[in-house]
Amino acid sequence: MHVLELAKRRKTVRKFLSDAPPKDAILKALEVAKEAPSGMNAQPWHFLIVSNPSTKAKIREVCEGLEREFYRNVKGELADWLKERDFSWKKPFLSEAPYLILVFGIAKYPYWLQSTWIAVGYLLLALEELNLATVTYTPPKPRKVEEAIKAPKGYKLQTIMPVGYSADPKPKYERKKLEEIVSFV
Amino acid sequence: MHVLELAKRRKTVRKFLSDAPPKDAILKALEVAKEAPSGMNAQPWHFLIVSNPSTKAKIREVCEGLEREFYRNVKGELADWLKERDFSWKKPFLSEAPYLILVFGIAKYPYWLQSTWIAVGYLLLALEELNLATVTYTPPKPRKVEEAIKAPKGYKLQTIMPVGYSADPKPKYERKKLEEIVSFV
Repeated sequence: MHVLELAKRRKTVRKFLSDAPPKDAILKALEVAKEAPSGMNAQPWHFLIVSNPSTKAKIREVCEGLEREFYRNVKGELADWLKERDFSWKKPFLSEAPYLILVFGIAKYPYWLQSTWIAVGYLLLALEELNLATVTYTPPKPRKVEEAIKAPKGYKLQTIMPVGYSADPKPKYERKKLEEIVSFV
Repeated sequence: MHVLELAKRRKTVRKFLSDAPPKDAILKALEVAKEAPSGMNAQPWHFLIVSNPSTKAKIREVCEGLEREFYRNVKGELADWLKERDFSWKKPFLSEAPYLILVFGIAKYPYWLQSTWIAVGYLLLALEELNLATVTYTPPKPRKVEEAIKAPKGYKLQTIMPVGYSADPKPKYERKKLEEIVSFV
């Protein structure tokens, strides 16, 4: 089963080679995302592909500012989880990845958020098939990024996906067994 | 590109043959869903597979009650869209499909909702690869269904996916052109 193979192979990547994949590959992946179903078939999404270094640098700066604030305040289970994994406010992938795909949901139709994340699911598998790596990174206050890049009104930033070839040696995190997440009636 | 083919081929289906696909096929599709990435790798989802006719009938009854109320109050663009397509409060697929997959998000971890919908995206493509049809149906007040089936605390019903072989002649809704949903910086 092809999709199973892709889903198993795929892991989250936060370090990228500097060589840029062809822009066509990014567009091919988005051809997949756009086929996702959505409430009222509204297709309530927009994908902004950022390759301009100064825009990437600006996005990184805004996000790292938000992350600094977040890390000052984070507590409990999440704080421990982040510390164990050496995560910090630094998000170098935002300027190092050849592309950023900013995924916006258009907050106007029923289930716009859910629909947009189905499309993200499609996009993840499509990128994997094209041997492109990514992570779904969402800054703590996406509104601030929307403002910085002057996103149109109603365009809600859902995630920033840096895309490129993987240079990340971290293994895939383990998944639960099927028995743990499925039950029957 | 295999995923593109599946994504293009897939359409929403609301009528099902009565023959049941093997339960193994459903489990295979869920093997794909469980590989989805999630915030903190929390895998904040649960899949309840319902094949028992009386439970399906009960779920249908609760949902149709909620839908009746919804249709009495719906207005504007959504009301027109539903009317044009002959949608009504009747949801026969909830008892006619051989299986219902109830997808729950476990509202305890960062980005639990987003993560669960990525998994739904994975699941849709996996079902398509197995030639199984579905629709992501969400009742107007999912809480009422949670209560009726006594879902554990914190399990938030995200969608009910009837699954089976398609008997639905409706064509796939058209998608926008890539240029309409992508821009570049």
